[in-house]
Amino acid sequence: MRMYDIIRKKRDGHPLTDEEIRFFIEGYTDGSIPDYQAAALCMAIYYQGMTEDEMAELTFAIRDSGERLDFSAIKGIRADKHSTGGVGDKTSLVVVPLVATFGVKVAKISGRGLGHTGGTIDKLEAIPGFRTDLSEEEFTECVNRVGAAIVGQTREVAPADKKLYALRDVTATVDSMPLIVSSIMGKKLAADDDVIVLDVKTGSGSFMKTIEDSRKLAEIMVNIGRKAGKKIMALITDMDRPLGEAVGNALEVREAIDTLRGEGPEDFTELCVILSENILYLSGFGTMEECDEKVREALRDGSALEKLREMIKAQGGDSGVIDDENRFKQPKYPHTVLAEQDGYLFHMDTEGIGIASLLLGAGRNTKEDSIDPSAGLRILKKTGDFVKAGEALAVLYADREELFPAAEEKYRSALTWADKKPEEQPLVLGKVI
Amino acid sequence: MRMYDIIRKKRDGHPLTDEEIRFFIEGYTDGSIPDYQAAALCMAIYYQGMTEDEMAELTFAIRDSGERLDFSAIKGIRADKHSTGGVGDKTSLVVVPLVATFGVKVAKISGRGLGHTGGTIDKLEAIPGFRTDLSEEEFTECVNRVGAAIVGQTREVAPADKKLYALRDVTATVDSMPLIVSSIMGKKLAADDDVIVLDVKTGSGSFMKTIEDSRKLAEIMVNIGRKAGKKIMALITDMDRPLGEAVGNALEVREAIDTLRGEGPEDFTELCVILSENILYLSGFGTMEECDEKVREALRDGSALEKLREMIKAQGGDSGVIDDENRFKQPKYPHTVLAEQDGYLFHMDTEGIGIASLLLGAGRNTKEDSIDPSAGLRILKKTGDFVKAGEALAVLYADREELFPAAEEKYRSALTWADKKPEEQPLVLGKVI
Repeated sequence: MRMYDIIRKKRDGHPLTDEEIRFFIEGYTDGSIPDYQAAALCMAIYYQGMTEDEMAELTFAIRDSGERLDFSAIKGIRADKHSTGGVGDKTSLVVVPLVATFGVKVAKISGRGLGHTGGTIDKLEAIPGFRTDLSEEEFTECVNRVGAAIVGQTREVAPADKKLYALRDVTATVDSMPLIVSSIMGKKLAADDDVIVLDVKTGSGSFMKTIEDSRKLAEIMVNIGRKAGKKIMALITDMDRPLGEAVGNALEVREAIDTLRGEGPEDFTELCVILSENILYLSGFGTMEECDEKVREALRDGSALEKLREMIKAQGGDSGVIDDENRFKQPKYPHTVLAEQDGYLFHMDTEGIGIASLLLGAGRNTKEDSIDPSAGLRILKKTGDFVKAGEALAVLYADREELFPAAEEKYRSALTWADKKPEEQPLVLGKVI
Repeated sequence: MRMYDIIRKKRDGHPLTDEEIRFFIEGYTDGSIPDYQAAALCMAIYYQGMTEDEMAELTFAIRDSGERLDFSAIKGIRADKHSTGGVGDKTSLVVVPLVATFGVKVAKISGRGLGHTGGTIDKLEAIPGFRTDLSEEEFTECVNRVGAAIVGQTREVAPADKKLYALRDVTATVDSMPLIVSSIMGKKLAADDDVIVLDVKTGSGSFMKTIEDSRKLAEIMVNIGRKAGKKIMALITDMDRPLGEAVGNALEVREAIDTLRGEGPEDFTELCVILSENILYLSGFGTMEECDEKVREALRDGSALEKLREMIKAQGGDSGVIDDENRFKQPKYPHTVLAEQDGYLFHMDTEGIGIASLLLGAGRNTKEDSIDPSAGLRILKKTGDFVKAGEALAVLYADREELFPAAEEKYRSALTWADKKPEEQPLVLGKVI
């Protein structure tokens, strides 16, 4: 078998066999297939696509490219949620303690942020002392004792994905359905969960710009998950507005704490509830109505927030942040963005808002950049609000004042104004089960 | 400027600016742009194509990627012909001495063969002692004194093409009009010729499989050449049959000698005459009719053959091969391929015949392979011939008998048989001027 023939076959629009897909992934992982041939194949896949069978096999090959996690030492039903990324998405910080409250085990492996999207690991590291680099034994012990733990990706899980993603990132082949599907699911299936709930984002800040594409992506991922023996479902949620009001690491953790206390922004709270009740439902905790009621009760009675406190303690973090937000690193400067005109906020480009936060120091442009945990922004006016000239639209936070002008400009350019109120969109746009 | 943005722009079907094209070629040549990004861009170009302006700029950027040749020390009009490659194409061996007979200077830089196509340098090296590695001074001196010299490509000419071609070869991006055009013309324009005649092959053994594609390729190359200030024209010739009867290095040199003696195969002789008369015409040697007459006379009176003798001597070769073919290395074994059935030879797949010759040792699979100058084959029956079972179709030559079965099988599979005579195709299918 030759990589050349595989590239050519895909270039000409033919489906690859299971053996060809395995040959590619195994060879690319062990270095016998060079980057330039992988890049050519990724671009051919970008144009020619893949059948569902090809996507499934590519997913499984990526899953099998390294060690698969063994969660057999974890007792009980193991569940995970996965979001396809987004701006201001701190749902994991709420959903994980919420479902753990009921005894569902969450052994979660999360990523760091790159570019305009944030990463759960970066957010958790805004909590002083919080360790995301637990050993395997510590991780298992935490999950068994507390019910949940969240750690960074270790080198061994799905190494093909790590290598391929880095390549796609510099060869303009990220936006390809088969490559997105196999990257997400390859990693996800390498973990040893029973239940998976996917949150597929749609809109300007996400991989998939249209609802049709997002539904397709969700369906394919659910089918592949089921083929791999998982209990799995997907929500399609609106990314055409920022989720909640906080963007930036410490700011988002604070918003998650507020939400677990029952005082979070309405849209964000609602999404967390829906994700959590679906996890409980797939884990066998009763009807959907019963699961919904359980989840809301855990927010009301404070048990979910207590679970977060336990998690923070178990991973070495300062759980005092829950009661005293001054324990987070504080940004040196706030900067208020004022409206220059009257009108309705018609649309918010979440990618632009993500970039504004990046420009304030909350994200990284390259993997080597360090981030400022206190940087970011708080959104005061959201899509659909009527704003008068001079009213505050948002507050930006940074350690260096010179970062504000570019970030403010980016923030302003992310907003679309109109004379009339935009039609209200539901947050959850679809469900694939 | 970032290579990522250039890939993405082309991926999405937008034309690149001159600056972007230069940025790519310069960066790829100096190594600041890695192979994998170049591979992704080549694949995007494969699908999205390029405008004629983009192709011209890509050509000029490749031309300028290394030293440009300076032929100013060569006195008189400098001309060159270039073929887009083919099986059994030894036209250079005939056309170069033919036009040099009239004082047109040919300072020719040729390539080696790879895969099923042969290279002029390999053919010349079948002549004992022939040196294709002349120094620049020797080369100029030869051209001024004898009128022509043919040497191998030096490292400095259009290094971007060398690097890009090697990359395209392993990433299935050879068959792309903009990449073919810029590769051929980038190299060609780095030489310092006044007149260029292109021989664009069409059919199964060539880059371009259809006459429409070949005409398009020819037109684009002629336009680019003119833009660069050259006198240029192109012929479109049929590659759906082998040219002449010999395939293999020494065998083809012998056929070229026969042709210069006026005893060559009719189709091959005709093509050489047409190419040569067009070079003379563009070089200002009178009307096309006058040029035609001059060329035919030089074949009749032996002056063209004498020019070849001078060239061989000047480059250190044994010019005795002209009168005594036994001075070539002789193959150890001949092997006759017999017809197994009565019928018309309806079609000959030249790529298949090229591979048969390769299997006999006449070509190389990788750049490191050595070749057997005596290996190859002689075609006895050609397209349109009626053949009776038991008649000889071809004779194969090799140094090892065990090479015959695979080569014979390949040769046979390259032939299509029919009950009726195929329609006769002219050899020259079009002309772009």
